[in-house]
Amino acid sequence: MGATTLVILGASGDLTQRLLMPALYRLHTLGLTRDLRIVGYAMEPWSREHFERHIQKALQSFAPDYTPAQWNRFRRQLDYVGGELHPDHLLALKDKLSPATLFYLALPPPLFGVAAKALGEAGFAKPPRNGWRRLIVEKPFGTDLASAQTLRQDMHAYWEEEQILRIDHFLGKETTQNLMVFRFANRFIEPIWNAQHIAQVQITYAETLGVEKRAAYYDKAGALRDMLQNHLMQLFSLTAMAPLAEWDPEVLRNHKVEVLRSVVPITPATVDAHAVRGQYRAGQTGRKKVPGYRSEPGIARSSCTETFAALRLEIDNWRWRGVPFYLRSGKRLATNYSEIAVQFREVPGALPKAVHAGNNWMIFRIRPMEQMDLLVTAKRPGLELAGRPVVLTAPYASTDDREFSAYEQLLTDAIGGDRTHFLRFDEVEWAWRLLTPVLEAWQSGAPDFYAAGSEGPVTQKRLLDPGHAWRSIARNGEI
Amino acid sequence: MGATTLVILGASGDLTQRLLMPALYRLHTLGLTRDLRIVGYAMEPWSREHFERHIQKALQSFAPDYTPAQWNRFRRQLDYVGGELHPDHLLALKDKLSPATLFYLALPPPLFGVAAKALGEAGFAKPPRNGWRRLIVEKPFGTDLASAQTLRQDMHAYWEEEQILRIDHFLGKETTQNLMVFRFANRFIEPIWNAQHIAQVQITYAETLGVEKRAAYYDKAGALRDMLQNHLMQLFSLTAMAPLAEWDPEVLRNHKVEVLRSVVPITPATVDAHAVRGQYRAGQTGRKKVPGYRSEPGIARSSCTETFAALRLEIDNWRWRGVPFYLRSGKRLATNYSEIAVQFREVPGALPKAVHAGNNWMIFRIRPMEQMDLLVTAKRPGLELAGRPVVLTAPYASTDDREFSAYEQLLTDAIGGDRTHFLRFDEVEWAWRLLTPVLEAWQSGAPDFYAAGSEGPVTQKRLLDPGHAWRSIARNGEI
Repeated sequence: MGATTLVILGASGDLTQRLLMPALYRLHTLGLTRDLRIVGYAMEPWSREHFERHIQKALQSFAPDYTPAQWNRFRRQLDYVGGELHPDHLLALKDKLSPATLFYLALPPPLFGVAAKALGEAGFAKPPRNGWRRLIVEKPFGTDLASAQTLRQDMHAYWEEEQILRIDHFLGKETTQNLMVFRFANRFIEPIWNAQHIAQVQITYAETLGVEKRAAYYDKAGALRDMLQNHLMQLFSLTAMAPLAEWDPEVLRNHKVEVLRSVVPITPATVDAHAVRGQYRAGQTGRKKVPGYRSEPGIARSSCTETFAALRLEIDNWRWRGVPFYLRSGKRLATNYSEIAVQFREVPGALPKAVHAGNNWMIFRIRPMEQMDLLVTAKRPGLELAGRPVVLTAPYASTDDREFSAYEQLLTDAIGGDRTHFLRFDEVEWAWRLLTPVLEAWQSGAPDFYAAGSEGPVTQKRLLDPGHAWRSIARNGEI
Repeated sequence: MGATTLVILGASGDLTQRLLMPALYRLHTLGLTRDLRIVGYAMEPWSREHFERHIQKALQSFAPDYTPAQWNRFRRQLDYVGGELHPDHLLALKDKLSPATLFYLALPPPLFGVAAKALGEAGFAKPPRNGWRRLIVEKPFGTDLASAQTLRQDMHAYWEEEQILRIDHFLGKETTQNLMVFRFANRFIEPIWNAQHIAQVQITYAETLGVEKRAAYYDKAGALRDMLQNHLMQLFSLTAMAPLAEWDPEVLRNHKVEVLRSVVPITPATVDAHAVRGQYRAGQTGRKKVPGYRSEPGIARSSCTETFAALRLEIDNWRWRGVPFYLRSGKRLATNYSEIAVQFREVPGALPKAVHAGNNWMIFRIRPMEQMDLLVTAKRPGLELAGRPVVLTAPYASTDDREFSAYEQLLTDAIGGDRTHFLRFDEVEWAWRLLTPVLEAWQSGAPDFYAAGSEGPVTQKRLLDPGHAWRSIARNGEI
């Protein structure tokens, strides 16, 4: 393949500085993007030199492996065009495009549709002979079912579904990809990966951070939109999907969508049984006193936005009926703690009395450390035939491993045309469809409060089956 | 329960000094045998004081926790009677017995039957009202099927099967007992513990030691009798047996016997397809040059005794048909290495090309370290969706654990009347029955030679199914 061009729309913005350029720079230094030309596009009437200085500064801050020598090679890949998101302006890009060209919408979400249309109107969506055009779109893809469908229409006015690469950076994470490999590359998993043997699944993404500088966005979005609808639903469908007949991006996404389509719909009447929302009050993370959400800069004093959301999902298919999937995410929780934890059912009782076999857990830990744990019962050393819990553990990566950020992974895939780790529209749509009744119910009323630095609202317990308990965030999963 | 008496027949011998007394001493220091009286019995016309001095010397050598103060408490438990294995002489013990009394035959194997009968004739086999009598017998229990059956007749002349505790010290080992607990206390094991998911099982007990001071015994016995017929067959039946409906020693032993009864019989015509024997020649273990077996002191220059034996067993039942079980043990091998290794079948091929999912292994390691390993395939960190082998591992015991020797375990069980870890006659009988054609075939011909310090004879490969390989002894199980 000859040269590829990546056009970044929104090249003067934060995402470009903090994430895209450092990722592109690292791929460049590793020799993985030799033939890539990067064209920045933004409103600012910058010269190429100005853009380069802008990016250089960003890399000095955000690229840990920045060196002047590397930069001097990398800068040659860069170019810049200034203009509005209007076809007439965009035409200035025309001579800079290669037969193989990607457009990256590093823009505020309300501009996604506008930009996609303008690119189409400029004639950039149609692939040239012997070439291709792709469109990379950041999340969030809509703010509810209706807006997602509208956005889809705007995009599909000129772009085919196959050209659109919707980013969910969780799919670029090593642990997420390992989940896909691990489930199907190990003989002992599939026979036990069903309701006969699994009792419950807990997917948690907890962070100690508060709303930080994202108040304007976050206060409109909330935890359900910010984390659950996209990232956690992805982990959920990867955990629950059926094995693939073929390792193919479309087969994979078909299977993920099938999971979503099999989820028992939440109705206005069942929202409280399936969803809990919380908002942090003042409290303490570690030794630091932190303010409540409503006292954060940029947040309304009466905001009812949830900073914590938990869901109970049930899948009504042959594999999963009877297994609750618990998903939750929140800010200002006790620790940075993230995992997919699968609990197996109890064993029948024909064991020595002193054994007390606990349930097995298989845990894909994402934070604070990436590792796999298998919690088993083994004999307690000693004269008695007694049991005790033992953890079989394997760190995911060794110190020899070269790890890549989610953006390095996803940019590489986008350039290479691998859609495996991008969202198809129907995945997005079904996730919105499932959560719409919750979003609607949460437009009124108030969240349950929890102290910053805690486990989240105590009301999250109401989602659990009898005998189930949330894994402890403060104790990194110990129950 | 009141006082218990343990009579050790053969109290002046090596087993008493090296293993029984150190075990009894340790149980005493831990306060686990407060009410136990220990009566030594042997031919030597010793006084009690003489016996005490004899035992004191033994403990000073073989009990790592010996202290004069503890000894002064322990010695009070001891008593001694001198005499032959004749009922008239044994009657001198009569006044020393408690309602609860065990007899331990720490004697040369040819005397087991004689001693059991003499005890019976002295009237000691019959339990008094409100009491019991038990008989502990060391291995080997016979040297072939016929001698085992004769021995059984001698024992059962006066003793009931329920009174006889046949020792296989492997059953007193922590790892063996953990195998029993682990298999049935963990939900994820049973659904995959069958021929649909398991490809092969390898049970290895390798040692670097040569024949040492056991030439007279060993040259008559050989590896098949010394290790395979008893210890490895026990590990084999514990690995292969069906789950118990109830945790009961008789149910357990029924299930173990059922495994042995389901083994496809080896016939004279199939011996070579199911068994390989080897004998070590001169070689090197570590940096030490060591002589060949035939040059060891006490071994005939033309001895054809096997110092290595390997078996291929097939179980023709619903669970295991199609899964070869490979068992092997030998002396003067590359390392001290012992384990039960279960290999799972391959996964179907619907995986990314770069994943190359290897077979999963579940390994119960006994030596050099006691631990459980689960060999899995995980994503190799990096941009490509590739796999690599990763080991989930858990050490069996932590440094906090108080570990007990097999004899401490088995003596405690014998005193407490727990038969779980002792052999029933039919287990012994069926193991002999299975191996008789091999023993008979090996009465002529010669073993295959292997260099001391190696993996054993190369001919062991002929037992393997296509695609299978012996795990490497030198590399502690890496294939």
